[in-house]
Amino acid sequence: MMDVNIVLFDEFETLDAFGPAEIFGKLPQIYNLKYVSWKGGIVTSSQQIQTVTCSIQEVEPASILLIPGGQGTRTLVKDAAFIELLKDAAVDASYVLTVCTGSALLAKTGLLNGYQATSNKRAFDWVQALNAAVVWQRQARWVVDRRFYTSSGVSAGMDMTLGFLADRHGQSAAEEIAAGIEYSWHADAHIDPFA
Amino acid sequence: MMDVNIVLFDEFETLDAFGPAEIFGKLPQIYNLKYVSWKGGIVTSSQQIQTVTCSIQEVEPASILLIPGGQGTRTLVKDAAFIELLKDAAVDASYVLTVCTGSALLAKTGLLNGYQATSNKRAFDWVQALNAAVVWQRQARWVVDRRFYTSSGVSAGMDMTLGFLADRHGQSAAEEIAAGIEYSWHADAHIDPFA
Repeated sequence: MMDVNIVLFDEFETLDAFGPAEIFGKLPQIYNLKYVSWKGGIVTSSQQIQTVTCSIQEVEPASILLIPGGQGTRTLVKDAAFIELLKDAAVDASYVLTVCTGSALLAKTGLLNGYQATSNKRAFDWVQALNAAVVWQRQARWVVDRRFYTSSGVSAGMDMTLGFLADRHGQSAAEEIAAGIEYSWHADAHIDPFA
Repeated sequence: MMDVNIVLFDEFETLDAFGPAEIFGKLPQIYNLKYVSWKGGIVTSSQQIQTVTCSIQEVEPASILLIPGGQGTRTLVKDAAFIELLKDAAVDASYVLTVCTGSALLAKTGLLNGYQATSNKRAFDWVQALNAAVVWQRQARWVVDRRFYTSSGVSAGMDMTLGFLADRHGQSAAEEIAAGIEYSWHADAHIDPFA
């Protein structure tokens, strides 16, 4: 079993976090879903969903860290104490996945320096300006560089998560999950209809 | 402003509920998102998301009721007290939207009798057998019959919600929301790749 720690914060974008949760949840014998935040407690998404979380300091090493985006990232990128905690969790993680402007938070940790990564297309200039040492890819549904998976905006997080499962468990396993949730998977990370 | 009351219960399917929430949330000047359950309090999805809810008895009339599906529907269809409360809320609603096996719950209220409706393709026989007075449509991404919108499995709920917004606010408004979340909208309710 491997923990998937989904990092929540006030004004996270609902689908960024819970689209991938839906998909990881289809392999409950392999992935154990956890919801974490800076201080634990109840966190509210931009779509008014109040979710119970535990503290990010409880994250176990050698797990998966998934960082969504959303309006809340605009203030969190400036919060050195939060970024430090996020970095601690990301350093220890086997894989770090980001959706949308979640890559802005990961970029602020410095761990993406020299790595290829992408982000939401409508927030791209803002994200890019946060850290020029990241090799930003403007045209990509998602980008894989060693242990970092970064996706474009919102819905792209579901495609990336299926891609991550395909890389680990085979293409047909990912296709079967997509069919089970009646989802038309964009399986090619290089085709980006929204760039 | 119109309330969108999303009905949650233990073992609801995450994306059934929170995919539509993502989309309704893009028109915050028109739609006010609320999360309700039988008795209020914390409800846990099949993907381990613990969400704070208020009671379904607090739902205002002339609002929208959205009913997700999921494993939890298997026991709830047999729960006459819950179905009665759901019926009360659905009778008073301006629109009732269901995703996946959420249509099983609505069918049990009797309000769909004589109406066209659809459901998840892998649970279709089970849903159909619950109420033969519903005019079940096996091939449809979603079905609209007067104030009832019913969708196929999981991801189809997002397409239906965009279709609902297109019906009320125009096709281009729905297309703009889809583009904003980098989502390739299946805009034709009659094309069902999973039937």
